[in-house]
Amino acid sequence: MNLILLDPNDLTVDGHVCITDPRRLTHLRDVHRSTPGALLTVGVQGGNMGKALLKELSAERAYFQLETLDEPPPPPLPVHLVLALPRPRMLARTLEHVTALGVKEITLLHTKRVEKSYWQSPELRAEKIHQHLLLGLEQARDTQLPTVTLSKGFRPFLEQQLPDLLGNRRGLVAHPGMPDPCPRNISEPTLLLVGPEGGFIAWEVEQLLTAGCEGMHLGPRILRVETAVTALLSRLF
Amino acid sequence: MNLILLDPNDLTVDGHVCITDPRRLTHLRDVHRSTPGALLTVGVQGGNMGKALLKELSAERAYFQLETLDEPPPPPLPVHLVLALPRPRMLARTLEHVTALGVKEITLLHTKRVEKSYWQSPELRAEKIHQHLLLGLEQARDTQLPTVTLSKGFRPFLEQQLPDLLGNRRGLVAHPGMPDPCPRNISEPTLLLVGPEGGFIAWEVEQLLTAGCEGMHLGPRILRVETAVTALLSRLF
Repeated sequence: MNLILLDPNDLTVDGHVCITDPRRLTHLRDVHRSTPGALLTVGVQGGNMGKALLKELSAERAYFQLETLDEPPPPPLPVHLVLALPRPRMLARTLEHVTALGVKEITLLHTKRVEKSYWQSPELRAEKIHQHLLLGLEQARDTQLPTVTLSKGFRPFLEQQLPDLLGNRRGLVAHPGMPDPCPRNISEPTLLLVGPEGGFIAWEVEQLLTAGCEGMHLGPRILRVETAVTALLSRLF
Repeated sequence: MNLILLDPNDLTVDGHVCITDPRRLTHLRDVHRSTPGALLTVGVQGGNMGKALLKELSAERAYFQLETLDEPPPPPLPVHLVLALPRPRMLARTLEHVTALGVKEITLLHTKRVEKSYWQSPELRAEKIHQHLLLGLEQARDTQLPTVTLSKGFRPFLEQQLPDLLGNRRGLVAHPGMPDPCPRNISEPTLLLVGPEGGFIAWEVEQLLTAGCEGMHLGPRILRVETAVTALLSRLF
């Protein structure tokens, strides 16, 4: 938690901050080892970041005086990430990685090689996803929550969502064996599609290319999804 | 396990392969769901890769006929990675990530903000480290094991190891707040130094810069060590 991320409800009308949830209280006490008088980095969800002076820390609440709140969050990456749904533990870590890296739009997609049972995982509950996004923001010092969309059918995605997503974005499908390497240091709005462990099937790649995406690869090595996504984002932007 | 990594002892004199360890047998049976007749990708530690035909799979052994063994492993990254020792679970994952990405020389370093207790972790036992390196190679389809060196004092590293390491390498220290961004798409031999959670202390950075390293940063976001290392390697090479 490099940033104490504040819900608008944590702000009092007179410019103070009052935190009462056990997760952040425990973190302040046991990890930060904060004591009254400490000046901590805070940020308001969806808003600015700044500094707050810790006035009081008890088992029930942390009470801060807000000193500044004038620093904008870091810029987002210009990417909508479409990720074949990974297995639950990989999903949790990947959501944290990509949120920390600055991704703001995420679609989790069903493809042929996604195990159907993954869609029943408790990790897909809205509050679990939200928790991982918060951890990513707190890690990276960011305040802008990503949106996460679940897309449980490949064909409906292809027919109903992909054309709009490609309307003003460059579509890039990461797939081993494509002729072109991953582009570097681009800045245009991008739709990045990443397959599951085992990859997209050939038919899926064909459909994505026909719809206007470009294929590209990261080299001869086969990477786990969480490694590949971080490597792709870091090379692209 | 995208590659069945063979120890030279797994090879019989008449060109067959015999595997008897439970880890690989279980994986062949339960994850690959291999049956006799399957043609699988194999590689010999430190040597070439190729195909082997599964002839027999029992609880005691898997027996293959080696078909080809003429594909060289993918090229390594031209980097020696010096990583402040991360906490044990992060270390395990990071070793797998960087091995999969093609790093062949790793030094784990003590710095001021590394918790001393981490050096007592069972994850640092040679056989545990070896296991994570094997998993990284099997994931990426590579056969060349990285070397891992433990460097338990910052000053001895600085005085006795760093000058040699910098003799024929470009030294790069990844540290938030440095003026220059991480270079992109370089190919020269590189020494990449990455601090612990919380970063190098100012004195450590000064010493590294004085010794001839260049400082650089990955942007305003603070990343976890495992995310940062993957992002750095992917952007640099």
